[in-house]
Amino acid sequence: MEKHIRYDHQKQALILLDQRRLPLVEEFFACRRTADIVYALKEMVVRGAPVIGVTAAWGCVLAAEEVSSSLQSERANWEEKLETLIGAIAEARPTAVNLVWAVERMRSLWKKGSLGSLSNVLTTWKAEAARIQAEDIAVNRRMGAYGAELIDRGDTVMTHCNAGALATAGYGTALGVIYAAHEQGKNIKVIANETRPFLQGARLTAYELHSAGVPVTVACDNACALLMQRGMVQKVVVGADRIAANGDAANKIGTYGVALLAREHNIPFYVAAPLSTIDRNTPCGENIPIEERPASEVSLLAGVSIISAGVPVYNFAFDVTPAELVHGIITEHGVLRPPYEDSIAQAFARSEKERAW
Amino acid sequence: MEKHIRYDHQKQALILLDQRRLPLVEEFFACRRTADIVYALKEMVVRGAPVIGVTAAWGCVLAAEEVSSSLQSERANWEEKLETLIGAIAEARPTAVNLVWAVERMRSLWKKGSLGSLSNVLTTWKAEAARIQAEDIAVNRRMGAYGAELIDRGDTVMTHCNAGALATAGYGTALGVIYAAHEQGKNIKVIANETRPFLQGARLTAYELHSAGVPVTVACDNACALLMQRGMVQKVVVGADRIAANGDAANKIGTYGVALLAREHNIPFYVAAPLSTIDRNTPCGENIPIEERPASEVSLLAGVSIISAGVPVYNFAFDVTPAELVHGIITEHGVLRPPYEDSIAQAFARSEKERAW
Repeated sequence: MEKHIRYDHQKQALILLDQRRLPLVEEFFACRRTADIVYALKEMVVRGAPVIGVTAAWGCVLAAEEVSSSLQSERANWEEKLETLIGAIAEARPTAVNLVWAVERMRSLWKKGSLGSLSNVLTTWKAEAARIQAEDIAVNRRMGAYGAELIDRGDTVMTHCNAGALATAGYGTALGVIYAAHEQGKNIKVIANETRPFLQGARLTAYELHSAGVPVTVACDNACALLMQRGMVQKVVVGADRIAANGDAANKIGTYGVALLAREHNIPFYVAAPLSTIDRNTPCGENIPIEERPASEVSLLAGVSIISAGVPVYNFAFDVTPAELVHGIITEHGVLRPPYEDSIAQAFARSEKERAW
Repeated sequence: MEKHIRYDHQKQALILLDQRRLPLVEEFFACRRTADIVYALKEMVVRGAPVIGVTAAWGCVLAAEEVSSSLQSERANWEEKLETLIGAIAEARPTAVNLVWAVERMRSLWKKGSLGSLSNVLTTWKAEAARIQAEDIAVNRRMGAYGAELIDRGDTVMTHCNAGALATAGYGTALGVIYAAHEQGKNIKVIANETRPFLQGARLTAYELHSAGVPVTVACDNACALLMQRGMVQKVVVGADRIAANGDAANKIGTYGVALLAREHNIPFYVAAPLSTIDRNTPCGENIPIEERPASEVSLLAGVSIISAGVPVYNFAFDVTPAELVHGIITEHGVLRPPYEDSIAQAFARSEKERAW
């Protein structure tokens, strides 16, 4: 599964498994220029906050290659051109903070270092993008270990959307917790909400978990309340696209409803996300921009229209779960508990201490 | 729209608009024998509790025709044969009580009357089926009038599944309320939840309302909580497949979740259903059988599989909304309010009084 994102140094291309066609077709999409990266992000060839960050980092590398390979005369003002290209990457999608986080991490290396030449920037960025990718897997393993402690033997865990290997550099955030509990022999089962309209749960989560031998059953999003009412769900674990400083968590549309229904049925609801998903510059959920996507994602099923012509569609891609509904945020620096302002600040302090070591 | 169910006396066939193919294709399905009726019910050529009742009533007529046209020798024990055929109709689907209600209404006419011959039964049943069909439309108009009083000018009303003209003999239960409010110039809008897996909301409700000039927007089921959180929904009105004596209401999967989310956001939640949907022999929701339907309804989209082979699927077709979440049950005998044991009994008393007149 870790081959779903791979930088090919020889071809100067980022090779992505095209997540739009899974599980029916395993097809790869090669990004050779910045425009390909922006397309891949916008069109959801690749989706999921952490892997969006990794894609953006490699996108910066491709942007530098692109400027570098332009005509000598045009290279004169390479800094301005590079700014424009990486700026376009950062704006490809609005909700996942990992996108901006990754681009900023690359940019700050360039700006604060004395890298001088474009070729130095390129060399440094290649190493940094590889580091971001490797770190993400390591971070997910740590989150998995912390999160698995919250899962009891025999639990059925509900998850929404795909916060798995495919949504990250590998292993996954919410599914990392599930993989870790499974590897510990906890004999768990998973219910994957299908997650309309893009069907990440049905197409990607079920595919991943089934391949890994984790028992998984798919249900339509609207079955959630019934399954909880029948006692068929013991825990909910989801990922996040951006977590505000107060713990409000933006995630795939439907997550907020699942969280409310979980509270109604006394089921613990956890968010699994690395610190890179926590945006301390966003005070609370109301400040998180919610992407609206094309109506055709809802109205076309396998190319067939299910809605009469002329009928409008709401297609908000995310919603925000208020912190009060979140029992814990599972990070690579432990499980954060309310009040999140404090526990988030402490986790960042631990993270900085660790980095200083 | 009222042509979606029509008995053709010359052809001895019940002509149904095939709801599986809407809105893309307007195709008719002709039922000539009892087996066709059972197929149409099971495969959801026609769906929606009230129209299931009307279909079942005409199905009894077809059953009588079938027995009548069998060889003279076989007609000897026609009563037993007729029992078997109408029994098969009554068992075609388990949740909607209107199915059993309609078959019982036909059977009791036969059993308690002194109809004698099969040909007398046939004549009586044809008149009765036509009466059930006509009554249903009249009942929906009355419900619409009562229900419209609950809708305020400018409201956006959310509905789930299709409880419209297509789900009834005409006009609709939940959508009857919406049509009535619209006809009164209340300037309302509607949000139709798409209603996976069969997509009755996207395919049928949007089609009906749009054709009638009622502004309607489709949203995925999992957007419900966000839309409510944003103040985009003022009322919820849904239909029902069976209401227990205590007011617990079985309806299309997802309704229970919508009701819980409505309560969380202080949005009134109403059920619109004729008295024929209230089953006083079912004490509470736990006694209502919940149909499970084939996995392929979830896993195939326009014939394309969205789920890896070997992954199981939950496909419960209904859920039960506890009476405590229901602000009112809109019937043809007024809006019933809690405690429902009392208000339901009173409504039935009014109904019997009216019939005695």
